[in-house]
Amino acid sequence: MTNSTVALWDIFEFSAQGPSNGNPFVDVSFKAEFIFGNRRVYVPGFYDGDGTYRLRFSPDTEGEWRFVTSSNAAELDGLEGTLTAGPPRKGVRGPVRVQNRHHFAYADGTPYLPFGTTCYAWTHQPEAMQDETLATLAKAGFNKIRMAVFPKHYPYNSNPALHNIYEKTGDGEADMDFDRPNPVAFRHFENQIGKLAEMGIEADIILFHPYDRWGYADMTPEQDCRFLEYIAARISAYRNVWWSLANEYDFLLNTKPMELWHKFCHVLEENDHMQHLRSIHNGNPAKNYNHRLPWITHVCIQHWDVKQTPLWIEAYDKPVINDEPEYEGNLYQSWGNISAEELTHRFWTTTMRGGYAGHGETYNDPDDLIWWAKGGKLHGEAWKRIKWMRELLEEDVKHGLTMLGDYYAFPYSRISACQDGEDGTRYFYFGEHQPARWATGLPNDGGQYDVDLIDTWNMTIEPAKIVDAYYVPPTRHGNVTRGGGVESDFAVELPGRPRLALRVRPRKT
Amino acid sequence: MTNSTVALWDIFEFSAQGPSNGNPFVDVSFKAEFIFGNRRVYVPGFYDGDGTYRLRFSPDTEGEWRFVTSSNAAELDGLEGTLTAGPPRKGVRGPVRVQNRHHFAYADGTPYLPFGTTCYAWTHQPEAMQDETLATLAKAGFNKIRMAVFPKHYPYNSNPALHNIYEKTGDGEADMDFDRPNPVAFRHFENQIGKLAEMGIEADIILFHPYDRWGYADMTPEQDCRFLEYIAARISAYRNVWWSLANEYDFLLNTKPMELWHKFCHVLEENDHMQHLRSIHNGNPAKNYNHRLPWITHVCIQHWDVKQTPLWIEAYDKPVINDEPEYEGNLYQSWGNISAEELTHRFWTTTMRGGYAGHGETYNDPDDLIWWAKGGKLHGEAWKRIKWMRELLEEDVKHGLTMLGDYYAFPYSRISACQDGEDGTRYFYFGEHQPARWATGLPNDGGQYDVDLIDTWNMTIEPAKIVDAYYVPPTRHGNVTRGGGVESDFAVELPGRPRLALRVRPRKT
Repeated sequence: MTNSTVALWDIFEFSAQGPSNGNPFVDVSFKAEFIFGNRRVYVPGFYDGDGTYRLRFSPDTEGEWRFVTSSNAAELDGLEGTLTAGPPRKGVRGPVRVQNRHHFAYADGTPYLPFGTTCYAWTHQPEAMQDETLATLAKAGFNKIRMAVFPKHYPYNSNPALHNIYEKTGDGEADMDFDRPNPVAFRHFENQIGKLAEMGIEADIILFHPYDRWGYADMTPEQDCRFLEYIAARISAYRNVWWSLANEYDFLLNTKPMELWHKFCHVLEENDHMQHLRSIHNGNPAKNYNHRLPWITHVCIQHWDVKQTPLWIEAYDKPVINDEPEYEGNLYQSWGNISAEELTHRFWTTTMRGGYAGHGETYNDPDDLIWWAKGGKLHGEAWKRIKWMRELLEEDVKHGLTMLGDYYAFPYSRISACQDGEDGTRYFYFGEHQPARWATGLPNDGGQYDVDLIDTWNMTIEPAKIVDAYYVPPTRHGNVTRGGGVESDFAVELPGRPRLALRVRPRKT
Repeated sequence: MTNSTVALWDIFEFSAQGPSNGNPFVDVSFKAEFIFGNRRVYVPGFYDGDGTYRLRFSPDTEGEWRFVTSSNAAELDGLEGTLTAGPPRKGVRGPVRVQNRHHFAYADGTPYLPFGTTCYAWTHQPEAMQDETLATLAKAGFNKIRMAVFPKHYPYNSNPALHNIYEKTGDGEADMDFDRPNPVAFRHFENQIGKLAEMGIEADIILFHPYDRWGYADMTPEQDCRFLEYIAARISAYRNVWWSLANEYDFLLNTKPMELWHKFCHVLEENDHMQHLRSIHNGNPAKNYNHRLPWITHVCIQHWDVKQTPLWIEAYDKPVINDEPEYEGNLYQSWGNISAEELTHRFWTTTMRGGYAGHGETYNDPDDLIWWAKGGKLHGEAWKRIKWMRELLEEDVKHGLTMLGDYYAFPYSRISACQDGEDGTRYFYFGEHQPARWATGLPNDGGQYDVDLIDTWNMTIEPAKIVDAYYVPPTRHGNVTRGGGVESDFAVELPGRPRLALRVRPRKT
């Protein structure tokens, strides 16, 4: 009988010795119920090699928890313990959840605005490079990172993986027993997730992907599901885990049909006691997964046409993260060669339309050390603007940004405007538009507002030039007169260049 | 019995005196058959005031034509004449037709690539300003102009119209008899069309529009149809006429339902002996007319999202002109405030995806003298790039540009590339993309090519830096290997900035 204490949303781990003969990964079941008052939470355990079995649990409620194990191995069955969950450590806010329908917040209620980046295979690079990645992340300002469990084989990605995810059976790279996970690889992976958690970075874990030369993408459905159970048992207790079922799942449909993707989601639902966020990322923009399905918590999409963001929000009625609105860089692949200005523009356009965007950087490198896949150093310019944008929005956004107006209505199909909740700060992003003055969507309630002009590229904020509201003549459409009048309490003069935004803050009284 | 000569595609006019009592516009029918061998061409005549009736006819075939009139007025019935149609005057190429399914050519077979602009109400401004408009057009390089028959009432457009389109019945602006056209107004209008013809500019005539304070938009269906018959009789013989049934037809649907728009097209089909091009322009992007209908010759659209151009070509299988991909300017209306860079970008994107774009300029002016509505002077920067682009494309394009690859396939959904016909010059427009090197879509047939690097904004052309073709590693997607290999005979190095294009010309041997 153990008796432990753990802070809220931290990890409680319990281990016990059990059978090491045969194949414990397959032969031995080991799980627990964690009990709090009337609640019973199912927590699967896992085999960690050398006869050691572990359970990991993260409490979501302060107080006294009790657990009892069950197993088909006598020495692992019926083990019990208690656990006192105390207040969270400073800075720990719990897992991110959907909040306000199209937005996110930490479990403690703090709004979470994803500003993520992508380093698919950073945990498979040499250790020194992983340290460099972590150092870069410490200054870069991203609060989410897309990263894959399995190593990546792809153009610019032909180097060996740091660890084999399964036990070797021979000298060839692909000689592995896909029924025997390699605990060393998983320990390393979860260690890096833990470091990210301490840095305040969500780990958007890509469970399957098609870029493979080792056979990971060609395991049997049974092995796939066992892999999901195993990793869910190992890392669900990390508060910063998000499940990305796949990167470009549709490129795997020839071997993993749609029903199997549904099943994968169910395996996670059953084995993740924290019910982390779940999404599936598409390759072909015409092959989106049906994100309306109830086991999908938010939309993860790749699409370059970011003005369509409100259409995806409408279609799926969930938070939308466009994790791949193309990458800043200069590769010959056109998903990886937009300018820094353009990626910054796509971040603003997406965010000002109620969605969230993801960063990636793909500059040619003589040694193929490209951030998007391997981490290391950032060489571009967009990340600085994205960091600045995140800080700017976090100052004000409490509820989540909802697009102003109606996408189908002029002018909101053309410029991008939004408001935090019903009465919070409004933002207008003009992008390629450069009106000399602006009034549409500005307040008309007689209230007091502070209005700032934002240069999204040069990262400057200055008081906007407020001018008198102006009369808009009505438009006569045959025998119907539309619009007209003074639509706002004041107007703003703008300096006539692109990439500007306005921030309209209700003045605190 | 008259006996006349006229050059091919020029205007033959026949006049006769007839009744002037009652309302000749309504009471008197006057028409003719023009006969060439077995062909009989119906040509409606029109009343031009003061007892004068006219017929206008433009021959499409050289040789001897004969005509005979018919009328319900005895003095206009059974008049006959002959007409010798000779070779066209130098520079006269006949009306523009659809050619090669998604493209245009003059009747003599010369390719016509529309590079149009928009001055909705230029013929309703003071005469001096109209002269200025013509002087601007003479240097601007546009070969099409959108212009309305009726004057325009709209924001920035509140000045009086130069002419009343119908006879006045009182002192008020709207006091008109909509059963009695004002020949003076029509004579002025067609005079300006004739000047455009001599300048090589197609007149894209907007027949109805909703921006009205005079009552033109609220005539009865009978009056509308009579208006169409009247203007068709007057101006069909002008070789440069295109019929744009409306600007923003959908804003008039409350008084002119869809069936009436179909009927309008039929009236033109019946009364236009030259069968000029016919289109209908939408307001709301979700309310496109069904451009598949057989009486529509080409798609006229307004949409800011120009990367969708191939989708419209696919949907309607006709030439696509995006006459309103937003305008260069700084108005508060977001259809009228994109930067010159952006409009130039949208022209290139549209054209390199197999469509055609239209220009408009909307800079604030203290006297509301804005090119888009009134003509006058151009103040922007896009028109120069568009003129340059037109000259560049006209050097090579003989068949029409067809998008390379498949819109749904990477990379053609992201960058814009096309080829003239099956084996002509290829173009690649990178826009916001900036690959350091490029090979996709370059020739792989062992042929000789001249490759130029084009800076679409700075208007420079220089030989591109050709480098060895490079090996593209295959992409493994699970158990499927995709792509890979050397896909072209050579590659190109690019200088890593946006708005570049490549031109790849087969070398003449």
